[in-house]
Amino acid sequence: MAEYKDMTKQQLLAEKEQLQKRFEDYKAMGLSLDMSRGKPSKEQLDLSMDMLLPIDYVVDGFDVRNYGILDGIPCCKELFAELMGVEPKNVVIGPSASLNLMFDYITQCYTEGALGSTPWCKLDSVKFLCPVPGYDRHFTILEHYGIEMINVAMTPDGPDMDAIEELVKDESVKGMFCVPKYSNPQGITFSDATVERIAALKPAAKDFRIIWDNAYCVHDLKEEGDVLLNIFDILPKYGNEDMVIEVCSTAKMTFPGAGVSALTASDANIAQIKKRLNCETISYDKMNQLRHVKFFGNVDGIKKHMKKHADIMKPKFDMVLNHLENELGGKGIAQWLDPKGGYFISLDVMPGCAKRVGELCKEAGVTLTTVGATYPYGNDPDNSNIRIAPSLPPVAELDLATQILCVSVQLACIEKLVG
Amino acid sequence: MAEYKDMTKQQLLAEKEQLQKRFEDYKAMGLSLDMSRGKPSKEQLDLSMDMLLPIDYVVDGFDVRNYGILDGIPCCKELFAELMGVEPKNVVIGPSASLNLMFDYITQCYTEGALGSTPWCKLDSVKFLCPVPGYDRHFTILEHYGIEMINVAMTPDGPDMDAIEELVKDESVKGMFCVPKYSNPQGITFSDATVERIAALKPAAKDFRIIWDNAYCVHDLKEEGDVLLNIFDILPKYGNEDMVIEVCSTAKMTFPGAGVSALTASDANIAQIKKRLNCETISYDKMNQLRHVKFFGNVDGIKKHMKKHADIMKPKFDMVLNHLENELGGKGIAQWLDPKGGYFISLDVMPGCAKRVGELCKEAGVTLTTVGATYPYGNDPDNSNIRIAPSLPPVAELDLATQILCVSVQLACIEKLVG
Repeated sequence: MAEYKDMTKQQLLAEKEQLQKRFEDYKAMGLSLDMSRGKPSKEQLDLSMDMLLPIDYVVDGFDVRNYGILDGIPCCKELFAELMGVEPKNVVIGPSASLNLMFDYITQCYTEGALGSTPWCKLDSVKFLCPVPGYDRHFTILEHYGIEMINVAMTPDGPDMDAIEELVKDESVKGMFCVPKYSNPQGITFSDATVERIAALKPAAKDFRIIWDNAYCVHDLKEEGDVLLNIFDILPKYGNEDMVIEVCSTAKMTFPGAGVSALTASDANIAQIKKRLNCETISYDKMNQLRHVKFFGNVDGIKKHMKKHADIMKPKFDMVLNHLENELGGKGIAQWLDPKGGYFISLDVMPGCAKRVGELCKEAGVTLTTVGATYPYGNDPDNSNIRIAPSLPPVAELDLATQILCVSVQLACIEKLVG
Repeated sequence: MAEYKDMTKQQLLAEKEQLQKRFEDYKAMGLSLDMSRGKPSKEQLDLSMDMLLPIDYVVDGFDVRNYGILDGIPCCKELFAELMGVEPKNVVIGPSASLNLMFDYITQCYTEGALGSTPWCKLDSVKFLCPVPGYDRHFTILEHYGIEMINVAMTPDGPDMDAIEELVKDESVKGMFCVPKYSNPQGITFSDATVERIAALKPAAKDFRIIWDNAYCVHDLKEEGDVLLNIFDILPKYGNEDMVIEVCSTAKMTFPGAGVSALTASDANIAQIKKRLNCETISYDKMNQLRHVKFFGNVDGIKKHMKKHADIMKPKFDMVLNHLENELGGKGIAQWLDPKGGYFISLDVMPGCAKRVGELCKEAGVTLTTVGATYPYGNDPDNSNIRIAPSLPPVAELDLATQILCVSVQLACIEKLVG
């Protein structure tokens, strides 16, 4: 297979004609396929229905149906503490989505500062580092508060640490969002060296905060998943206990709309967070917390459950990867990674072509994640990155959708090359 | 029965000796009774257990177990719209507690302003009007954001409107918290004239906002409950559509820790709220929303359900009121109201005596709501108001606790009178 760049214009036009014919055939099928969001499939949701069987809602003499217990029922704090490798006293149980916890924490820094620092709303300039490509909803939070986002390139080991160590010398750089395991969208797990360098950062801003969004902490696709260092084990060595706020949730273990989220942080951060939490709510849904604890039992139970998810997800990932390899491999027009977990495959097409791929897919009835959404302000400077979310569509639909995507990528690249 | 003020010192001391004896007898019982918070009893929680029976979580072709639908599932928006007498398009479904919606709305005003106004965090002075006695958690939110609280006296018709009409001429007065029906703690429902005057306010601040916390909208205790005018029917007459944000929840209909909350507001306010909500979450718990809709069916279903709550609650209220009448009636040392609904009985004892009553109760094993908590900054200037929450304790415990309260009131007043 020749690379496109080595082909003559005539060869490319011949190729284009073939692709165009395939494209028209797909279009004629009048499809409506969705690969846009990391939503679990119905089959995955069905895995957790036993969680809804009747249980006793009194635990250790406390009726969890009633008011009380601000930061989560003890057995639920213990479960998440085990999951994150921290002490239960450093855990706060949140609402159904960890996004809410992250939003609330940034809001807290914005309105009251972090551990006595100047509230960010009182500063002229607040900047955050954003490893790219990344998760659009992190960027949305930052944009909402007018926080300037600075792109930091991802490498196969995590974000470019040389760049970060330089950037944090600016006191107006107040933090960074990370998805350290199976990053969204690339599925990269930060290497031990990267985690160590992050833990060792010496930012000029004393209120520099890293939001460690461990959304995919147990979301392996392969038997041998990646292992992420526990950053809370390393932070004390550098006196940086207060620098990291970690969150995770069961959104992609049980029910995305009705999971349980959790946050872990240093004693000092937890104290500040609880003080605010006491103004915000009386408690989050403790009945749902207890249902989760009884359903999983412990972290082993979570891991067993996640294997069932992997059994459903892996064939879908394999199908997408096979199509990419078969259709795009060796043509020098696209790159992708084969993640060991997470929810996405990140596809980088020839610079300048991603938006056109999105348009072509849409024309043929396939919805992709909005091209550009993986970058702050929706602006992918290379117009290259496409996030593929294989989880939701049934296999047959995914098969078709991926073929259409592959044809669209080739067409867009040829258009670019032959003008 | 003579009023204490008409008794001689000798008579009072003789009375005190008798009371002291009763007090010591109670103390010797080593009790631990709680009348502090408006928590439903176990019997009330049991009324809603059928809500947890298996249901089909697909509604109108949409699987509510998955991500999506930011502002609540349509059938849940319809239920709350019917309950609040507004259009479904003006409803946003929130998390398990309306407190969270109120906190978030004040946070929104603080961080971004209301409909284009200057964010409150950028202003030197922001004040709120607080009808007193009132709900401590409203005050906590305001105190958190450093918003200055101004007491406004409650009357039997609602807050003192003459005072409010004068106070809103100050542009730094940005809003007011209200519990317009069965107010916390007095159980007063705002009269039609009061609601009309509130709707007609002409505050100097264009971003003046009233948080209309309709927590007890269907929480009648008596057959003929109070009727509150729907303020959203009146606001347009005065061009004040944007001035009111109403919230309510099922916390005291189903499960306090796991209910569904809702907010209603004008089109413009809803648009601003949804924009922020889109940064904060993907959606709140839609499975719980659907369970509630299927359990209640419609507002008639809610009302029938609330009668069952009233059947449990009313005998408790009657018992407290009987003790108050029998022990404190005619002595000129205490006043209270007989509310037609809500969760509390508000007791005003002789000025200067409330804290001492709280101490005596504690000594005898009865926990009251922290005395002073019904006022901003925990400061009841008259040291007079006590909030009684009869809902949680079983009848026998409530009986004892109320007797102890009554003895403590009499003792504290005599101490005050005889020095």
